[in-house]
Amino acid sequence: MSITQNFTTPISSSSSAFLAPSSFNSRGGHVSLPVKSLGICKCVATPQEAETAYKTRVIRNPNMGKLQAGYLFPEIARRRNAHLLKYPDAKVISLGIGDTTEPIPEVITDAMSKRSYALSTIEGYSGYGAEQGEKPLRRAIASTFYNELGIEEDDIFVSDGAKCDISRLQIVFGSDVKMAVQDPSYPAYVDSSVIMGQTGFYQKDVQKFANIEYMRCTPENGFFPDLSSISRPDIIFFCSPNNPTGAAATRKQLTQLVQFAKDNGSIVIHDSAYAMYISGDNPRSIFEIPGAKEVAIETSSFSKYAGFTGVRLGWTVIPKQLLFSDGFPVAKDFNRIVCTCFNGASNISQAGGLACLSPEGLKAMRDVVGFYKENTNIIVETFDSLGFKVYGGKDAPYVWVHFPGRSSWDVFSEILEKTHVVTTPGSGFGPGGEGFVRVSAFGHRENILEACRRFKQLYK
Amino acid sequence: MSITQNFTTPISSSSSAFLAPSSFNSRGGHVSLPVKSLGICKCVATPQEAETAYKTRVIRNPNMGKLQAGYLFPEIARRRNAHLLKYPDAKVISLGIGDTTEPIPEVITDAMSKRSYALSTIEGYSGYGAEQGEKPLRRAIASTFYNELGIEEDDIFVSDGAKCDISRLQIVFGSDVKMAVQDPSYPAYVDSSVIMGQTGFYQKDVQKFANIEYMRCTPENGFFPDLSSISRPDIIFFCSPNNPTGAAATRKQLTQLVQFAKDNGSIVIHDSAYAMYISGDNPRSIFEIPGAKEVAIETSSFSKYAGFTGVRLGWTVIPKQLLFSDGFPVAKDFNRIVCTCFNGASNISQAGGLACLSPEGLKAMRDVVGFYKENTNIIVETFDSLGFKVYGGKDAPYVWVHFPGRSSWDVFSEILEKTHVVTTPGSGFGPGGEGFVRVSAFGHRENILEACRRFKQLYK
Repeated sequence: MSITQNFTTPISSSSSAFLAPSSFNSRGGHVSLPVKSLGICKCVATPQEAETAYKTRVIRNPNMGKLQAGYLFPEIARRRNAHLLKYPDAKVISLGIGDTTEPIPEVITDAMSKRSYALSTIEGYSGYGAEQGEKPLRRAIASTFYNELGIEEDDIFVSDGAKCDISRLQIVFGSDVKMAVQDPSYPAYVDSSVIMGQTGFYQKDVQKFANIEYMRCTPENGFFPDLSSISRPDIIFFCSPNNPTGAAATRKQLTQLVQFAKDNGSIVIHDSAYAMYISGDNPRSIFEIPGAKEVAIETSSFSKYAGFTGVRLGWTVIPKQLLFSDGFPVAKDFNRIVCTCFNGASNISQAGGLACLSPEGLKAMRDVVGFYKENTNIIVETFDSLGFKVYGGKDAPYVWVHFPGRSSWDVFSEILEKTHVVTTPGSGFGPGGEGFVRVSAFGHRENILEACRRFKQLYK
Repeated sequence: MSITQNFTTPISSSSSAFLAPSSFNSRGGHVSLPVKSLGICKCVATPQEAETAYKTRVIRNPNMGKLQAGYLFPEIARRRNAHLLKYPDAKVISLGIGDTTEPIPEVITDAMSKRSYALSTIEGYSGYGAEQGEKPLRRAIASTFYNELGIEEDDIFVSDGAKCDISRLQIVFGSDVKMAVQDPSYPAYVDSSVIMGQTGFYQKDVQKFANIEYMRCTPENGFFPDLSSISRPDIIFFCSPNNPTGAAATRKQLTQLVQFAKDNGSIVIHDSAYAMYISGDNPRSIFEIPGAKEVAIETSSFSKYAGFTGVRLGWTVIPKQLLFSDGFPVAKDFNRIVCTCFNGASNISQAGGLACLSPEGLKAMRDVVGFYKENTNIIVETFDSLGFKVYGGKDAPYVWVHFPGRSSWDVFSEILEKTHVVTTPGSGFGPGGEGFVRVSAFGHRENILEACRRFKQLYK
């Protein structure tokens, strides 16, 4: 096998981002893109080199080889870049990856800026922080989001983002556990499970990995899985409000989920990264459900509230009541991972997080969330007026549009080709997403309005 | 088994930090400590609760159970806290964990502060960055540290620190590889290997994990292992300048290491986090050695140059020439991990990193490094004058002091008890560290001088 083959054939079987590295701004909400960053891989060796190339004797991790496609969002960035190469003058609007676009409120950046300056003074300098996060921030997270829910500050682990914590949780659980995920779901759950060796091979016919329980979530079941049909999983990833469907679980549904976990001795990892988008009285935290502390972990993030997608700050709650089968606390193993494989989130980001939770910061975050929720309404109304079945939106910044009977990659391509708007194909979130497209509400208002005008043009 | 047992017996077999959480400042260079943070674990259940406590049916990851002690540095923080409880008025000086103490130069914090503010403007806002790091920073790292070494910007992966990248590399390699580490060495190498399931159980008699090759580094062999006695490893962790011994490998030694890797088809992970501390002309990068690009990865960090231990920024170099046995590029799998399990370093930290590599930033970093190197000289001279054999120091911020025939935990305790100075026991870095104590040169000048006065008092 030549190196050329190695670099060209796996374009779709590994990360395409490596082949077409996205530049600094390429995923932002900006309309223009630095075209010069579009990559023809510089590292393709000539055949002659390839034949004589030195190879180590280290065997590639077979779990890495199981991964089927580039991680979804770099793949979308790659297609977006290819589109720009084809239409260099196109005004591309990105409603794909779910990247925040609105500036961070000043009350928050002010705190980060001050912390930066303080680091150049003897009094204000700090080096390694506690790996679990700064105490005042842990305390503020506990009191802001878990007040009266029995979650204490030492149950909170501050992180550099929910995605990173998902992988750290997978390291804690190791390779001998069986996962269940909602189908469709955020791809990091399945991919990290594959990487850790928890799954079998990808089965092309059903578009699923062996040894993962895919819990189908459809309009028919209100996007809540039929738990009676699920064989016992060890770990259940459950995202509410859901990415991509936008559905928020009701109190009754979450109670059912907690009961299912308790009956089966399973652990629920509740991803609540969009909780502030909930409009009604659906639970913001799984710990609102009695008994959840014995069966659940919750992971969350400042990304979609404060525009911290680039600042990197999140947290994970692991109640001390959550125990492995031998009685060992899950939090102790997670803490060991945090101490050994991580060194805490940036102290500057943590200063920003603390400002987010001040009264002014909370108001500012609510304003940001409110702005994106107005965007959501505009998108929902647009597809509604065009006669599409539209889901989500009410409690989440994602609109889940049904294109029955069509391939979602085809719809993605059609929309990109004809409107220059980037969306996300539903099948990228699992086979249950086929026939849907996710439209993100993260965008400047004028871009949302312009995208909706183009949708109306295309589907009138 | 009751919960009480679960929480009390594993104090030394899991992370002690969870039981005695260190507070925000507890690892800083400050002399005073918030005593109220000293932890008696709040989560010890009463025996009655323990008997009725709900346990999930999820089996604890057996690899986590193999870990023997709390990660070294939280363990030291715990002992330091216990000491403060005993001597609440003691002026404790911390020369233990290797945490930077000097303020970050203003040219660097200024850039971070500006970036923070920019994030609150429409023009300056950015969300998700490229997972691999911002292009200008990758370019600056390549040109600053690898100029004319054939390392290109797309070989550079920006990270939130070398420790985090070590774990990400372990995820890439998976469980079916055999590691070799210098003995003594930075504990994250061995611990992450255990966590990933690459090792057997801990063998108490030899104080080693099965299936790791411990490459003894002693004064006798100039702290460079006898490679002829090593059975073939897949992965070789090699740290130069070394933590903890302070030894920097010569060009001849590194050439030998690269040749050994090439002969065996092994991959060297070269940890060069202290490279700027090198005084003479020993190589700063393994890529100065011809052929290294086919067998080596290099991981590094801004922590010890710019005081970024809390800001979190590092990088890893994976040359595109480095191939698994099947010809697949290691960089492509690492990229997949970076995209799936990580979302890039904080954009504010990256702005700081870019400022570090400006002409003013480089000068400022050299000044910081120079300051710590003066500290090193003071410590070396002190122990030298007391008749101890002293190693390291010349090319590293660590002084490796020999106490022949003594237990290094005993010496650690003696020094702490009698001088209120925290050091690090050599055996915490592996059995080869027994009989040594590592003294870190990271400290305010007055603390270094005071610690040395106390050492002279104790060992006169």
